[in-house]
Amino acid sequence: MTKGIMANRICELLGIKYPIVQGGMVWCSGWELASAVSNAGGLGLLGAGSMYPEILRDHIRKCKAATDKPFGVNVPLMYPQIEEIMKIIVEEGVKVVFTSAGNPKAWTSFLKEKGIKVVHVIANGKFAQKCEEAGVDAIVAEGFEAGGHNGKEETTTFCLIPHIRQVTSLPLIAAGGVVTGRNVLAAMALGAEGVQVGTAFALSAESSASDEFKRRCLNLPEGETKLSLKKVSPTRLVKNEFFQQIYDLECKGASADELKEIMGKGRPKKGMFEGNINEGMLEIGQGATLVKEILPVSEIMKNMVAEYNAVLGGLQGL
Amino acid sequence: MTKGIMANRICELLGIKYPIVQGGMVWCSGWELASAVSNAGGLGLLGAGSMYPEILRDHIRKCKAATDKPFGVNVPLMYPQIEEIMKIIVEEGVKVVFTSAGNPKAWTSFLKEKGIKVVHVIANGKFAQKCEEAGVDAIVAEGFEAGGHNGKEETTTFCLIPHIRQVTSLPLIAAGGVVTGRNVLAAMALGAEGVQVGTAFALSAESSASDEFKRRCLNLPEGETKLSLKKVSPTRLVKNEFFQQIYDLECKGASADELKEIMGKGRPKKGMFEGNINEGMLEIGQGATLVKEILPVSEIMKNMVAEYNAVLGGLQGL
Repeated sequence: MTKGIMANRICELLGIKYPIVQGGMVWCSGWELASAVSNAGGLGLLGAGSMYPEILRDHIRKCKAATDKPFGVNVPLMYPQIEEIMKIIVEEGVKVVFTSAGNPKAWTSFLKEKGIKVVHVIANGKFAQKCEEAGVDAIVAEGFEAGGHNGKEETTTFCLIPHIRQVTSLPLIAAGGVVTGRNVLAAMALGAEGVQVGTAFALSAESSASDEFKRRCLNLPEGETKLSLKKVSPTRLVKNEFFQQIYDLECKGASADELKEIMGKGRPKKGMFEGNINEGMLEIGQGATLVKEILPVSEIMKNMVAEYNAVLGGLQGL
Repeated sequence: MTKGIMANRICELLGIKYPIVQGGMVWCSGWELASAVSNAGGLGLLGAGSMYPEILRDHIRKCKAATDKPFGVNVPLMYPQIEEIMKIIVEEGVKVVFTSAGNPKAWTSFLKEKGIKVVHVIANGKFAQKCEEAGVDAIVAEGFEAGGHNGKEETTTFCLIPHIRQVTSLPLIAAGGVVTGRNVLAAMALGAEGVQVGTAFALSAESSASDEFKRRCLNLPEGETKLSLKKVSPTRLVKNEFFQQIYDLECKGASADELKEIMGKGRPKKGMFEGNINEGMLEIGQGATLVKEILPVSEIMKNMVAEYNAVLGGLQGL
């Protein structure tokens, strides 16, 4: 055990001290959160999914001003004005892009030609191989317990990571349920070389989500989230009035179009940013049960690293 | 790292070398499997759930003849002739009972008065506390990825184990997705003191399941199992003709009684024991994706321990 000087491919690739990436989440991860994570030794990501292009440019500039450490942008590939987003990323000199919810071939070579590192988010082995073909630098494999958008296979982090470790030699980041230092260590034991943390940072002091949303999710009772909207795009939601509407419709066999009509526009913003916890769409992972209080990012990172090292020190051989 | 001499509460409680328990599974875990696991240094369990009382007595006697190591019996508490089963367990001098699918208060004091160790299977924190009140010796916390009967909350092993570790100080065994040495080590990192392994042993040479069932489950494609029958008793099933019938009915909002009628009697036996992989009920965990070949128990254990130690040796501090 080489304590305090971890040499691994994720740290080297991304130029970070700890192999801990903050997930790029809609309505949570603006420049305050991303720069706080980067300043604490991880990799912060701006979540482009909930930003108009010029808003993203503004956040990139503010993030650069707030940290001299590396940070990145997460781009969901179904984003409508994606050409504009990619243009801004290049113009502003962003060094790392995490792409998700789409085909890794779409933008990888464009970004890599500009010298930008590309990491793609997957939920199964088939996409791990597509990522190899596309030439991405690393992958995030995300399990069923993760908040927000998720894979159709429902494979959990505990089963997904060893499987992906077997099917590809690409640098591998584990996501889904990574909240505490124990989770980080377990992810490494499963074969990951780094972790992506969403829920714990969505509920941090620097997250731009509303206090109402954060308080609703803290200490979340077990079973209070559910993977929903499978016909539209599988998404883990907190059980509230809006969820119940969706759930009842799904039980009656509603089509994707019917579901989209009920959802309407702006549900995630209403729930997570504006704090309407009954009518809004609340995206959070199962790991919210493990989050007990709203802490600054620096403390979250410190606790995570301390628990990781303490638990590692106590593990025994068989 | 104290290699080769693990001192932990699960090993001490159960009198075993490795803190690895074989799950008591219907139609898979008779005396051949249980004695093989005990002889390899783990704890074998006879699965009473698929045995008539006198069949169980026969398996207990054969198991005693096949190993001088400790073994136990798993008793689902919804078993119809449970008084008879418990009487046989006492008469035959069984030392360890794992109870599941019911209230831990029902039989714990009866068994403990006879000097029998009691371990109860749970899937949430509320039942962890009921187990403390009931005075059980240890608990198994089982995640969403596990095969067969499962919790309603859908909490995955990765999120469940650290949570249960926080709510109780009882000796804790992790279950659900534990297939490889990586999984065992990750479970320990999450806060478990031992593991219960179902799927990997269900697909071993000594499992009494049919070859057809084993071959269907080997290398199982991702997404090929699903937690079903939530209105009856949530059960993870392989997707086959029978599953599809159930699934279609569930989508149409069928009641528990309607589902039970379609299921009829003997579906698990038909699928797992008789090898009718289309019409039978096939219970297996998500971890089947990680099982590549049918091996004898001794090799499975050897591989698991070797991988555990190798991965532990390579983990770095932060």
